[in-house]
Amino acid sequence: MKTLASLSKAQLTDMEKKLSDQYNDFKSRNITLDMSRGKPSGDQLNLSNGILTAPLENYITEQGIDARNYGILDGIDEVKRLFSDLLDIPCYNMIIGGNSSLNLIYDAMARLYMFGSLGSTPWGKLDKVKILCPVPGYDRHFAICEEFGFEMVCVPLKKDGPDMDMVESMVKDPAVKGIMCVPLYSNPDGTCYSDETVMRLAAMETAAPDFKIFWDNAYGVHHVFKQVSLMNIFDACRQFHTKDRILYFFSTSKITFPGSGVALVAAGDEYIREIKRHFGRQTIGYDKINQLRVYNFFKDVDGMLSHMAALAKELRPKFNIVLETLNQEFEDSDMLQWKKPLGGYFVSVNTMHGCAKETVRLAKEAGLSLTNAGATYPYGKDPDDSNIRIAPSYPTCDELEQAMELFCICVKLASVRKALEYK
Amino acid sequence: MKTLASLSKAQLTDMEKKLSDQYNDFKSRNITLDMSRGKPSGDQLNLSNGILTAPLENYITEQGIDARNYGILDGIDEVKRLFSDLLDIPCYNMIIGGNSSLNLIYDAMARLYMFGSLGSTPWGKLDKVKILCPVPGYDRHFAICEEFGFEMVCVPLKKDGPDMDMVESMVKDPAVKGIMCVPLYSNPDGTCYSDETVMRLAAMETAAPDFKIFWDNAYGVHHVFKQVSLMNIFDACRQFHTKDRILYFFSTSKITFPGSGVALVAAGDEYIREIKRHFGRQTIGYDKINQLRVYNFFKDVDGMLSHMAALAKELRPKFNIVLETLNQEFEDSDMLQWKKPLGGYFVSVNTMHGCAKETVRLAKEAGLSLTNAGATYPYGKDPDDSNIRIAPSYPTCDELEQAMELFCICVKLASVRKALEYK
Repeated sequence: MKTLASLSKAQLTDMEKKLSDQYNDFKSRNITLDMSRGKPSGDQLNLSNGILTAPLENYITEQGIDARNYGILDGIDEVKRLFSDLLDIPCYNMIIGGNSSLNLIYDAMARLYMFGSLGSTPWGKLDKVKILCPVPGYDRHFAICEEFGFEMVCVPLKKDGPDMDMVESMVKDPAVKGIMCVPLYSNPDGTCYSDETVMRLAAMETAAPDFKIFWDNAYGVHHVFKQVSLMNIFDACRQFHTKDRILYFFSTSKITFPGSGVALVAAGDEYIREIKRHFGRQTIGYDKINQLRVYNFFKDVDGMLSHMAALAKELRPKFNIVLETLNQEFEDSDMLQWKKPLGGYFVSVNTMHGCAKETVRLAKEAGLSLTNAGATYPYGKDPDDSNIRIAPSYPTCDELEQAMELFCICVKLASVRKALEYK
Repeated sequence: MKTLASLSKAQLTDMEKKLSDQYNDFKSRNITLDMSRGKPSGDQLNLSNGILTAPLENYITEQGIDARNYGILDGIDEVKRLFSDLLDIPCYNMIIGGNSSLNLIYDAMARLYMFGSLGSTPWGKLDKVKILCPVPGYDRHFAICEEFGFEMVCVPLKKDGPDMDMVESMVKDPAVKGIMCVPLYSNPDGTCYSDETVMRLAAMETAAPDFKIFWDNAYGVHHVFKQVSLMNIFDACRQFHTKDRILYFFSTSKITFPGSGVALVAAGDEYIREIKRHFGRQTIGYDKINQLRVYNFFKDVDGMLSHMAALAKELRPKFNIVLETLNQEFEDSDMLQWKKPLGGYFVSVNTMHGCAKETVRLAKEAGLSLTNAGATYPYGKDPDDSNIRIAPSYPTCDELEQAMELFCICVKLASVRKALEYK
């Protein structure tokens, strides 16, 4: 491996000049590219257009309910069954909510803040509430914790999930009330929790009796290269009588249309009953027409999985462009580290320390929007200023090739300039 | 007027016997009728079926946004314009939310509970929060106040809105933080707030600087017999620099499909900015596809108003059945009082004191579901046990005639039995 530190000042200066020229050349092209958010591309969305064009002729649900009218708080049977079959969660334990699992997460936090759970003190009445945040992680999770003033405590994500030794030690603190998890193809790292990780999360003794695992299975069926299977956390918790610590979230936002799908929250028997009571005051019910439309589009798990296979086929070439470009440009370099994700929506990379912000700034100035450096850490603060989330789904393949070419130049330029500082 | 009290015990006993026979005759028919909730009928819903059957071919909004993807927190321009034209609220001051204005009310209360507003102390941190509740009122409003532990203080609804002398006196108490209003065709009374009422609500000095008017304009375009116009509360508040006390809610649930329409919350310039910041953490955005579908169905205010005229044509005969039956059975009796509503969804009646619960019980036993007696009062407690909400929209006209016949028998039977207690 060629380490930058081993190069002489002259060599680095020479590199900097060449990279600057390449960079400025790019800049002069006045491109506008966006790899900032995990948005599906138009081609991906087109695969779900059937939802838009199919007339909904039959609006009577299996239960004989007119979906056009009031009624049914927790979702129509057919959608519950679809998700139950897909995720192996009993229908009884789930509520089909509105269009956004993020909203369900926010609402779940708000309920805990205002009402506690199963008789515990509301979190808003406590002096301090700490939430464990595996890092790198999802900025919108962090924003919710921040909204409620919960202190976020970073836990490194290892290759099979959060550092469980650290988690088990931290949950001895009664102020530690929860952990944010994206257990499959995590955002942004693509980390998949191993069975052992799931078992340890289920089994661990927590000082807080109202400890919650926020299980945001956002990419639960987003197998791009390989299907990784995730242990069922309900099964794991059943063994240890800890089912009421689960708050499970899922949605079709990255399956059909972001923001126009259906989301679910699931919890243990006792806690879901309490949540339903609160839901009953919050709303009369969610959009059953949309639930029917989504159901009609898939019909069953096979329908959804073959749809996911088609989505994966769209995504795979894009992931390949990113991974092949990185490989080509940085395989034997210390300027960038990354892992190949097997599914999900992102490629997470780590620059040399202190180079992420500068890389993103350079890219932005040349017309390429990236997720802000630091966004993958609580409070937007990556202690190493190293992690960058690449979201390859939105651009076309042509755009992505350009974007990655520019990205690599920016990484190198930032790295070389940083190395020069030490010469 | 024949007062029951003026009748002899023998006369009452005779009446009781005849009514009992009529009642038992009804009971033996084993009917099942529902006048419990303000649900539209199938015929009403059919008027909106175009939303279900029209394919959504163009999913690009006027702003050039792909409605199928992430983006836009506060609603697409076309729907904002539709509501802005309809309600005369600037687009800037509104957020198009999900499918339920009730949910927006709950969320608004939760935000005040957790975060306060514009720098004020969060309501959840105060020893006591009192909310003024004009009575009779909407049970789901009361349920929300109860959820947060706010003390509900009853204020009588007079013919032109809440008793404003009482309101103005009560808001001198800094613990009084808000008032729940259904300003047009109120649920259940059909009361319409006069210009003077709106002006006084806008003008009054409140001891609480963060006092809020929850303006649930649920029936804002539900003119059944006559179009009553409601003074624009934003205009009124502008004059007194009190715009940030408004929380305005509206939805299409009773226009198109309950629970599958779009809802809005609007507030003054400063407060809506703060609300948008919170919304930005709660969700990425609401269902823009549904917003487009609703917009395409109406296109503009004329489209919506002609739809409302068609709905009114459906509702009018039902209101007439209720009102004519009541007139026929109770015109010169002291057993029941009511007002003819000009719009909305309900007819509110008052039995003799102490007869509402028994009336509802009798009806239920004979197969007719009514809204629980007491539901129109906070904590389900009508001090006079007198008010009953009749919801005529859901049954067919034939069913409604039967239901009203039974209802009148139940009122009379309960009244006569009550009168007998005093003989």
